[in-house]
Amino acid sequence: MFICNQLMLYSSYITVWYVSKAAAKTQMEFEYDGPSMKTEVPGPRSKELTKQLGEIQNVGAINFFCNYEESRGNYLVDVDGNRMLDVYTQISSIPIGYNHPSLIKSAFVNRPALGIMPPENFPEKLAESLLSVAPSGMSRVQTMACGSCSNENAYKAMFIWYRNKERGHNIPSDEDVSSCMINQSPGCPDFSILSFMGGFHGRTMGCLATTHSKAIHKLDVPSFDWPIAPFPKLKYPLEEFTRENAQEEARCLEEVEDLIVQWRQKGRPVAGIVIEPIQAEGGDNHATPDFFKKLRNIAHKHGSAFHVDEVQTGGGATGKFWAHEHWGMDDPADIVSFSKKMLTGGFYHKDELQAYRIFNTWMGDPSKNLFLAEVLNVIRRENLLEEVTRSGKTLLQGLYQLQDQYPNLLSSARGQGTFCAIDIRDDATRNSILLKARDKGVLLGGCGDRSIRFRPALVFKEYHVHMFLNVFSDVLAEHN
Amino acid sequence: MFICNQLMLYSSYITVWYVSKAAAKTQMEFEYDGPSMKTEVPGPRSKELTKQLGEIQNVGAINFFCNYEESRGNYLVDVDGNRMLDVYTQISSIPIGYNHPSLIKSAFVNRPALGIMPPENFPEKLAESLLSVAPSGMSRVQTMACGSCSNENAYKAMFIWYRNKERGHNIPSDEDVSSCMINQSPGCPDFSILSFMGGFHGRTMGCLATTHSKAIHKLDVPSFDWPIAPFPKLKYPLEEFTRENAQEEARCLEEVEDLIVQWRQKGRPVAGIVIEPIQAEGGDNHATPDFFKKLRNIAHKHGSAFHVDEVQTGGGATGKFWAHEHWGMDDPADIVSFSKKMLTGGFYHKDELQAYRIFNTWMGDPSKNLFLAEVLNVIRRENLLEEVTRSGKTLLQGLYQLQDQYPNLLSSARGQGTFCAIDIRDDATRNSILLKARDKGVLLGGCGDRSIRFRPALVFKEYHVHMFLNVFSDVLAEHN
Repeated sequence: MFICNQLMLYSSYITVWYVSKAAAKTQMEFEYDGPSMKTEVPGPRSKELTKQLGEIQNVGAINFFCNYEESRGNYLVDVDGNRMLDVYTQISSIPIGYNHPSLIKSAFVNRPALGIMPPENFPEKLAESLLSVAPSGMSRVQTMACGSCSNENAYKAMFIWYRNKERGHNIPSDEDVSSCMINQSPGCPDFSILSFMGGFHGRTMGCLATTHSKAIHKLDVPSFDWPIAPFPKLKYPLEEFTRENAQEEARCLEEVEDLIVQWRQKGRPVAGIVIEPIQAEGGDNHATPDFFKKLRNIAHKHGSAFHVDEVQTGGGATGKFWAHEHWGMDDPADIVSFSKKMLTGGFYHKDELQAYRIFNTWMGDPSKNLFLAEVLNVIRRENLLEEVTRSGKTLLQGLYQLQDQYPNLLSSARGQGTFCAIDIRDDATRNSILLKARDKGVLLGGCGDRSIRFRPALVFKEYHVHMFLNVFSDVLAEHN
Repeated sequence: MFICNQLMLYSSYITVWYVSKAAAKTQMEFEYDGPSMKTEVPGPRSKELTKQLGEIQNVGAINFFCNYEESRGNYLVDVDGNRMLDVYTQISSIPIGYNHPSLIKSAFVNRPALGIMPPENFPEKLAESLLSVAPSGMSRVQTMACGSCSNENAYKAMFIWYRNKERGHNIPSDEDVSSCMINQSPGCPDFSILSFMGGFHGRTMGCLATTHSKAIHKLDVPSFDWPIAPFPKLKYPLEEFTRENAQEEARCLEEVEDLIVQWRQKGRPVAGIVIEPIQAEGGDNHATPDFFKKLRNIAHKHGSAFHVDEVQTGGGATGKFWAHEHWGMDDPADIVSFSKKMLTGGFYHKDELQAYRIFNTWMGDPSKNLFLAEVLNVIRRENLLEEVTRSGKTLLQGLYQLQDQYPNLLSSARGQGTFCAIDIRDDATRNSILLKARDKGVLLGGCGDRSIRFRPALVFKEYHVHMFLNVFSDVLAEHN
């Protein structure tokens, strides 16, 4: 019964946080007051556990093992007792810090088949959670289990929508029905999704055909012959290079239109365009609102659906709940997909992209919706989007200063909210900086070829920024 | 704060079950004593909620809304207070009944990126849960969020393995690296997966290319040109038609070999073969152990990986933990994927199919592993596999009797454990029987063109079988 004892201990431990909540503790009291390092990372316990897990599965990507029970707010504690300021947050998926006192001790032991037998409170919980932050022009949402499933199903919704448009109605022919069973056209039509070089949309086979950030994701997996457009390579700060950047964006948009025409001629029409508001995994590449507005218009003009993938950017880190809100459009997209910080996967879509054939057993997990509803309450109650905007400004200013101080080491500081990044001289230096920062108790992540991406939780305050900048400054001095 | 109150109530309600557990109540005391119907189904509250949810998402597949808090054991309670004996269990995904007292009140509020920062107890929990039921010859397992992701990643593991075999090493060439970034061969090679007509392996684009059960799953979605073999169409009971069935199986196996040769000649070699031990969604189609043994040998002979998809059959419903155990093989497969009753998705694989490039943000959800560990404890403690074998035998005998009694209505009763099915005269009669049974408080599911599939939880005892057979018998009398 060892397992039960373990869990009971865990359970009672968590209860303590409810008491904390009742006492309305402030974040300062709730979390730790700074990093605290006891061993190198990974420490001996992490190494031992990595060896154990290596007997069961791949451990090539594992950094270290964590003590999630002891982690609090912006601090991740590892199994060797090292406490680190977390500016990476589980690849950007912990919205309001670790063990936030408001998070619910929820038992949802009966995982339902949501698509056929949802629980009574499901519409209400959707309204309180996902619908309360629906993107402009969208009142429909479909939950899914993870980011890849969200994008796969969003692509399917676009294909079905495009095919119905082509047919003029939604009734398949006998030939459609019989040919689809053996993977052949016209039932399985040769449609394509246009994606961008440097984009990342997931690793299942449909998603992977639109992912072009690193070869390691794609190698050895069969793919689709779909068009890939260049994503603008802009100069930062954007406001200092408006003319060059506008030219680069115009070049990319022209290429997009060319590809749409070419692929239509090839008999593989572009049913949808998928893009991230900021290319995250691909290196934190930004584009201007003007670029996205024009891209949206191109989609309209050619009858392709426009899918904004906010799996990494959504949930508040850019200072707005959705990164696409920075574009200032009433009708920003036909589909917006999400996961990570939203705790559940899924996608919003316009009414006309409603697809009765999007279905699977679980269709997400209602226990995650409950967490999300509470996360959103905390975001509102604690004005976390304003906090993010304030912290982000301080962070970006600090990065600009460091960049001026170390011009041979740093370049292209950029960001929206705390969703910031900076380029390092080269890959090796970048990786060394990541490790040195970790040894000093700051957890960072890389992206692209030689960038560092900052992905703190929404409870990352200005004093955390200062703490981070101090450590980062020390680490940079060692690399200059 | 309405949401919090709701949750608190829920939370305290659940606590009662812990008290029950301490008192070591038997199942008879724990669950209800029979169905109890108060309204037609869906009742007025379900209809109202369906309308509400219809404003947010598709409700075409929704049967009714449930009160999961009030559901117990084999009984699902709906929001109108109807209590139904559940022989379908959320498309076969509730392993030990609703709100089993042993299930854990676990708070796992920090969803970790398992692939990079797992919690300390992760290796131990894997050992206690998934590894403790690993299929013969497999000691490695990779968790995933759902069934589709499990199969998608299993296919990727097979592609990577096949390509490395082809190369003679695992170091990609420069051409591999550059071509894969634009979805082209040789980096994205033209490999295929051989699947079977009538098979169901999920709805994401890779899985969907191997799914051939219903057109509605596949329509309008681009696919791959992959080989599709016939699945044996056997006569039941299997032991009465051994000669005809052996001929039919030989025909299908011959076709499999032909397809492998053809697709190799086409430049699309078969990297893997995927099959269900019992085709579930496709109509509960069985094949003999001899068929699977020979298929396994064909895979060996042609150098293709052999992937057994146990998403629906795994977890004990056939009377063995994995359906493939009925084949009696020491080396049944290279990959076994699972989900549904296992509560987490994932796949076991042989050492040589280890793929360091299988990765995503969440890589499953450790809170589900905790549930699974407890589910497995219950299965062992309560000898549920023996119970399933006993109940299954009674169920199948009952179906045989009813089939003799109603030869114009019923045919082809078949099953392993409680994983049983029977064919109905036609589609319309089948659907009418499903609805009439529901009105009398028994919840059943259809599969294939005109079959009913029985998918009770593992706590479905002989007295539940009798209760079911009584209701079913009444319903059949009305349709004769």
